[in-house]
Amino acid sequence: MKAAEFKPEHFAFRVEGRVAVVTLNRPERKNPLTFESYAELRDLFRDLVYCDDVHAVVVNGAGGNFCSGGDVHEIIGPLVGMKNDGDMAALLRFTRMTGDLIKAIRACPQPVIAAIDGICAGAGACIAMAADIRFGTAASKVAFLFTRVGLAGCDMGACSMLPRIVGQGRASDLLYSGRALPGEEAERWGFYNRLLAPDQLEAEALAFADSLATGPTFAHAMTKKTLHQEWNMGVDEAIEAEAQAQAICMQTTDFERAYRAFVAKQRPVFEGN
Amino acid sequence: MKAAEFKPEHFAFRVEGRVAVVTLNRPERKNPLTFESYAELRDLFRDLVYCDDVHAVVVNGAGGNFCSGGDVHEIIGPLVGMKNDGDMAALLRFTRMTGDLIKAIRACPQPVIAAIDGICAGAGACIAMAADIRFGTAASKVAFLFTRVGLAGCDMGACSMLPRIVGQGRASDLLYSGRALPGEEAERWGFYNRLLAPDQLEAEALAFADSLATGPTFAHAMTKKTLHQEWNMGVDEAIEAEAQAQAICMQTTDFERAYRAFVAKQRPVFEGN
Amino acid sequence: MKAAEFKPEHFAFRVEGRVAVVTLNRPERKNPLTFESYAELRDLFRDLVYCDDVHAVVVNGAGGNFCSGGDVHEIIGPLVGMKNDGDMAALLRFTRMTGDLIKAIRACPQPVIAAIDGICAGAGACIAMAADIRFGTAASKVAFLFTRVGLAGCDMGACSMLPRIVGQGRASDLLYSGRALPGEEAERWGFYNRLLAPDQLEAEALAFADSLATGPTFAHAMTKKTLHQEWNMGVDEAIEAEAQAQAICMQTTDFERAYRAFVAKQRPVFEGN
Repeated sequence: MKAAEFKPEHFAFRVEGRVAVVTLNRPERKNPLTFESYAELRDLFRDLVYCDDVHAVVVNGAGGNFCSGGDVHEIIGPLVGMKNDGDMAALLRFTRMTGDLIKAIRACPQPVIAAIDGICAGAGACIAMAADIRFGTAASKVAFLFTRVGLAGCDMGACSMLPRIVGQGRASDLLYSGRALPGEEAERWGFYNRLLAPDQLEAEALAFADSLATGPTFAHAMTKKTLHQEWNMGVDEAIEAEAQAQAICMQTTDFERAYRAFVAKQRPVFEGN
Repeated sequence: MKAAEFKPEHFAFRVEGRVAVVTLNRPERKNPLTFESYAELRDLFRDLVYCDDVHAVVVNGAGGNFCSGGDVHEIIGPLVGMKNDGDMAALLRFTRMTGDLIKAIRACPQPVIAAIDGICAGAGACIAMAADIRFGTAASKVAFLFTRVGLAGCDMGACSMLPRIVGQGRASDLLYSGRALPGEEAERWGFYNRLLAPDQLEAEALAFADSLATGPTFAHAMTKKTLHQEWNMGVDEAIEAEAQAQAICMQTTDFERAYRAFVAKQRPVFEGN
Repeated sequence: MKAAEFKPEHFAFRVEGRVAVVTLNRPERKNPLTFESYAELRDLFRDLVYCDDVHAVVVNGAGGNFCSGGDVHEIIGPLVGMKNDGDMAALLRFTRMTGDLIKAIRACPQPVIAAIDGICAGAGACIAMAADIRFGTAASKVAFLFTRVGLAGCDMGACSMLPRIVGQGRASDLLYSGRALPGEEAERWGFYNRLLAPDQLEAEALAFADSLATGPTFAHAMTKKTLHQEWNMGVDEAIEAEAQAQAICMQTTDFERAYRAFVAKQRPVFEGN
């Protein structure tokens, strides 16, 4: 399967070299999600497991915002309708679909870099957390808005991911209050890996993605899988899991390539196998 | 059950609107804990599960200190007596009672805000960690003093909670050394959510508690429960847990109230159901 | 068993008072690890479980560097040979041996302080993480270099330990990029507990180690064991584990010594029992 052949309908998508760029692009509404875009994003990340032309992914938004979350009219309204119909099955079908998007982002072997400017709210903030790396701008605002629409902070894995990224106390503040986290605070807390000027954001995210995509991508995928697997594993069990995982990576030719290049005082050229 | 009717003997208690205020108040001794106050605090937080008049809790201390921990004369002395009697059952009864207080603070559905000035030591620091949100002052001192009395840092869940709040390395330092963590460092590390002037501390804690108590309290309680449940859950399992929890919240009328208010360009009035 | 009698061949070792000092000392190569030094370090930390003359450990490096990781010629080369022989058993034997070193550092009852100047790379960075406390210098560079040699960041428990020390987002950056973390950033992120001048590093690490070694060492060992055991335990289960662990500590004479000293307004003299 080739990512370069994907033609999604509900967001922009392009491949630059070995990097796929997913751009949420309904800028007039700050890039909200709809039932259709949730499902198509989920399917895209599921398909990336089988793509060998793309080795890193950048997710961003068009028009100076990342994502405003689930659209009030196209998502919240229909969900209120399901509630009034007493249709729990439909509500659960929706919350599971949104969760499946997060699972898919975390399960694809490619590292994912979120490039965040402007509004990054609700489900948008959860997509950002599912990414491996987050670059942001000073003017960006990350908000776990669920409480503002009468819902809980436990959405799409937020109560599991946010405490591990910024600590349990800070996560509680953000999830209960729904307040907007400014960019500088987000960097200080470790939510952002880098704070960048808006006009450098995409270029830096692409450059970082490219540096990973030209690295030992088989090994990167093992790093990603292991970080996920060890989320709730004891240290001793994690050490055994890593002994096995790293022994597998030592069987790759990339490992030998790096050694040969070092001995020859050259830069290694990795091939992801 | 109505919290407004509680009349505890061993600490001060009042209800302001929808917020309960628990004040440790033996200021001449910096508000130490005794066998009686431990038990009464535990019972209070257990009863709060069944109170529908209070939707957030503030815990603070009288006279410029939060809590000096277990009283040397009223607790440490008798424990040394139990030791010399070889009465392990009595020692374990005590350590389980103190742990039950932490479990009760974490199990009540109301978010708990600790407002910390002055000394916050030993069991006091553990009560602070059991809270969801911590506001402190620059002059406050948080100290896990257990090592100073010949004991281990593993007390009332400290070895589980502190690493998740400030990180594993910083937690180790505090637990082994028993040193006092100053207020600014506590904010920088994420132990405090906000650093405030002493004369604003209670007012700000009450204001934040009130903002939560007038929010979607059914959803807040679900956020609190989920943060607790997912402490050691894998991400994928957490996502399924949240899909179920949020679908339950979507069945509340508060969810519909927020939507109706948004459409009408009004501010929602939540009722916690 | 007496640590003072140890005569390791592959690194320097001395005992100062109650503190053991392990010094990686092939300074001309920035203190790389070899098959022999890995094994001997593992055995040393395993033996420390049975030593009653040493109550804290300092690990550092000679000549202004901590450790450059596995030696390219003495380790990477032979591993590439095993790969080309298709000898998975040998590769796994190696990755398990390196993991066993980490397990041994974490399993010995003595708190371990890593004193880090200069290069702290690959396996060296993992040894640093296995320590309880890390002191570093501004000029030090901590790098999870595995990606540079074509391998994954999942080595010796790094994917489990690093996220708990610096947060999940920052850990991902370091593990995928292999970039060097400068000293000030390491302190800001909680990787280092203190940032020191190079000429004060060893003295401060020894002083801190001595302060722990003259403290209630039975209790410190219980703190260390509990921090390890509760890595992936729920809060309620951790509270019960701590109720039991602290009740055990209350049976020590050190607990009574602290109480007697307090009542007599003296400084307690702990004996570790």
